[in-house]
Amino acid sequence: MSETVDIIRSVAELRARVRYWRDQGLSVALVPTMGALHDGHLTLVKAALELADRVVTSVFVNPTQFGPNEDFSRYPRQEEQDAGLLADGGCHVLYAPTVTEMYPAGFATSIHVGAVSEGLCGDIRPGHFDGVATVVTKLLLQCQPHLALFGEKDWQQLTVLRHLVRDLDLPVEVVGVPTVREVDGLARSSRNAYLSAAERSIAPVLFKVLNQIADGLRQGGAAEELCRQGIAQVLEAGFLSVDYLEVRAADTLERLTRLDQPARILVAARLHGARLIDNLAVEPAHA
Amino acid sequence: MSETVDIIRSVAELRARVRYWRDQGLSVALVPTMGALHDGHLTLVKAALELADRVVTSVFVNPTQFGPNEDFSRYPRQEEQDAGLLADGGCHVLYAPTVTEMYPAGFATSIHVGAVSEGLCGDIRPGHFDGVATVVTKLLLQCQPHLALFGEKDWQQLTVLRHLVRDLDLPVEVVGVPTVREVDGLARSSRNAYLSAAERSIAPVLFKVLNQIADGLRQGGAAEELCRQGIAQVLEAGFLSVDYLEVRAADTLERLTRLDQPARILVAARLHGARLIDNLAVEPAHA
Repeated sequence: MSETVDIIRSVAELRARVRYWRDQGLSVALVPTMGALHDGHLTLVKAALELADRVVTSVFVNPTQFGPNEDFSRYPRQEEQDAGLLADGGCHVLYAPTVTEMYPAGFATSIHVGAVSEGLCGDIRPGHFDGVATVVTKLLLQCQPHLALFGEKDWQQLTVLRHLVRDLDLPVEVVGVPTVREVDGLARSSRNAYLSAAERSIAPVLFKVLNQIADGLRQGGAAEELCRQGIAQVLEAGFLSVDYLEVRAADTLERLTRLDQPARILVAARLHGARLIDNLAVEPAHA
Repeated sequence: MSETVDIIRSVAELRARVRYWRDQGLSVALVPTMGALHDGHLTLVKAALELADRVVTSVFVNPTQFGPNEDFSRYPRQEEQDAGLLADGGCHVLYAPTVTEMYPAGFATSIHVGAVSEGLCGDIRPGHFDGVATVVTKLLLQCQPHLALFGEKDWQQLTVLRHLVRDLDLPVEVVGVPTVREVDGLARSSRNAYLSAAERSIAPVLFKVLNQIADGLRQGGAAEELCRQGIAQVLEAGFLSVDYLEVRAADTLERLTRLDQPARILVAARLHGARLIDNLAVEPAHA
């Protein structure tokens, strides 16, 4: 392809570009990512292009949302390839700030979104959502877009960010975009690159189990029992461990015992090579 | 006076007004206050009018920055009088949101600015600066002004807010305005209203001691010894207790032992009726 995407590395240059667009009456969407772009991200860009005149995709592997024993150093970084994909996808700007641009010496501020940050990944990854909330606030205030798009694959993250934007009165509309899946149902994720061929063949059991639980809930089943069975099935398929498999209220993430309101079934489980997460919406029949 | 000030109570209406001004190319300044306005606040409004085309003064007694045993319930509230003073002072809008407008049901987000929030009032009033940082972030994002003005009387607060704005990339310029004092040197404060006549006559010792320590530092004195003497003098004058009296670096609030960089001397002390704070700049002679 002969298309290219402009790469911007400083807040000042990003603001100048967005100001220039806004002065022309153009709407702007931001797609925050950590790079290693796949079809899931490109679907976000596509959705952004349908909703706004100009699209900025940020690529920043944010150190503050990784725990000390997590995969920050080995997280895939492939800017040239990402830039090519964004150019082909029609994105207007790739914003790729340095760590120093994002966190200059003396940086000491953090944002905590209570309630929805607790439990699920919040328990397994202490401080993770504070890191996410803080970096996304910065990206939103650096770019000042009209819209910001996030994948539903990280449902708890999306929920945390919706609450963040509402609570702090951030002047932006948050848009969630449905998860993109492989043919066998596996949710697209940059971390799928960590999987061996054998692990890759095991991974789709997560989506299968989510669907079984959704069916069980719609038939009146108890969330706890359905999740217990699901965990057993995930482990039997070859996962090393299950961090959680739970049914929660879709908006508040409160625990549900039955399907008495719009719900989300959420799972995180570990193979040797990677920790995978996924989730599925399930609605009461007559809601 | 025949002047009036428009009173706005909702985020939506405030945003519409500021948008209207911005569309005309007018610059906007925000002066956040907790009301009970005095000459100190009116000096902020005056400074704002010199720097911007339109001025919004917010009046919101923020519950989240008061501790459980502090004076939230008895903090003076006098909106009608405040509105009159703002009208006379040329302020364009009084923004007075309700607690429910600021903190709707489910609100659960807080902002912590590390380092500069610790020590001084941060130790004495746990959570206070988180409450301040969070509410000021909200006010800034609700109003989206070009400038925000704060009094130097709350020097640690001003420092916290400068760091907050820098760390989160809030698109606003923070302006500090020098403290307004009574003839006898007492810093103007809404809390001075709590003082009895006897206490009022004791209170100016704070400013006197700050000046003595500044002189001592300029003559090469050791900060610790000067502050020890100062604390004795404040207690001798009739204060019940001294929360702190310290010499700190003006920008980072790091403790100083001598005047080897631009410094700020900060004090908080209690009379029966009120806890008073004050501070004074002191610069090295050849800096």
